[in-house]
Amino acid sequence: MEFRIEPIGFVKKPEDGRIFLHIDSRFWDATLNIDKFSHIHVIWWATGFDMPEYRTHLQDVPPTEGAENSGVFASRSPARPNVLCLSIVKLVALNEENRVIEIDQIDAKDETPIVDIKPYLPSSDRVDDAAVPEWFKDLKKRYTK
Amino acid sequence: MEFRIEPIGFVKKPEDGRIFLHIDSRFWDATLNIDKFSHIHVIWWATGFDMPEYRTHLQDVPPTEGAENSGVFASRSPARPNVLCLSIVKLVALNEENRVIEIDQIDAKDETPIVDIKPYLPSSDRVDDAAVPEWFKDLKKRYTK
Repeated sequence: MEFRIEPIGFVKKPEDGRIFLHIDSRFWDATLNIDKFSHIHVIWWATGFDMPEYRTHLQDVPPTEGAENSGVFASRSPARPNVLCLSIVKLVALNEENRVIEIDQIDAKDETPIVDIKPYLPSSDRVDDAAVPEWFKDLKKRYTK
Repeated sequence: MEFRIEPIGFVKKPEDGRIFLHIDSRFWDATLNIDKFSHIHVIWWATGFDMPEYRTHLQDVPPTEGAENSGVFASRSPARPNVLCLSIVKLVALNEENRVIEIDQIDAKDETPIVDIKPYLPSSDRVDDAAVPEWFKDLKKRYTK
């Protein structure tokens, strides 16, 4: 059993330091009202890891101090059976003319394929007291105090 | 350009009301240390919507009071170009013998294909003051006060 996915756009990182999600013209209408959300989920495809040696890679040591060898479902490694990556980002602006969504940051290279965008809903997506292993406790907080 | 993804397991909803993610034996090793997290992201494939008429569907009205017609990237509708769905769930237990992860809830049917699991990291995944449109403001809070 396998499923087919296709890019709905690409990450664009021009030299001015701004970051954009450039949406394919066929899918632009799917952005209606997205600018009413402050944050979005971006699901992207780690093209550089879409190779058999990475897609059969099941464990590694996360790159944080004291980390134990872990399964890739217990890490955010892009080397995993389906090389999907997930980023929660801040929506800066929607630009209809250029068909881009400007965002504040993303850990994906220029030209990375985007496969989905979803709104961040605090009601179901925010967890107040999530437990993590020791090695992820001191990561820098991005959108929380 | 298109990419291939495959199930890494399936949602199981037996009649006793418990809910499990049954992991394919080929991928079980990728769960090592996942039980050190209290919450996980589950990315699943909305099989029932994997048809051209849903995958070209770009706008609809979210099923909440007062909602405006919105793009599917501004809603959590399973009808979208790539029928990926994302659920944040509580991890109840890991059962090595049966190769299952017990979870508290998921809005996916029995036998739904799972395509990825990622740990919930509050440092990057929790947003304290996310803005949403009026029609999503009164949704019931799941893991926050």
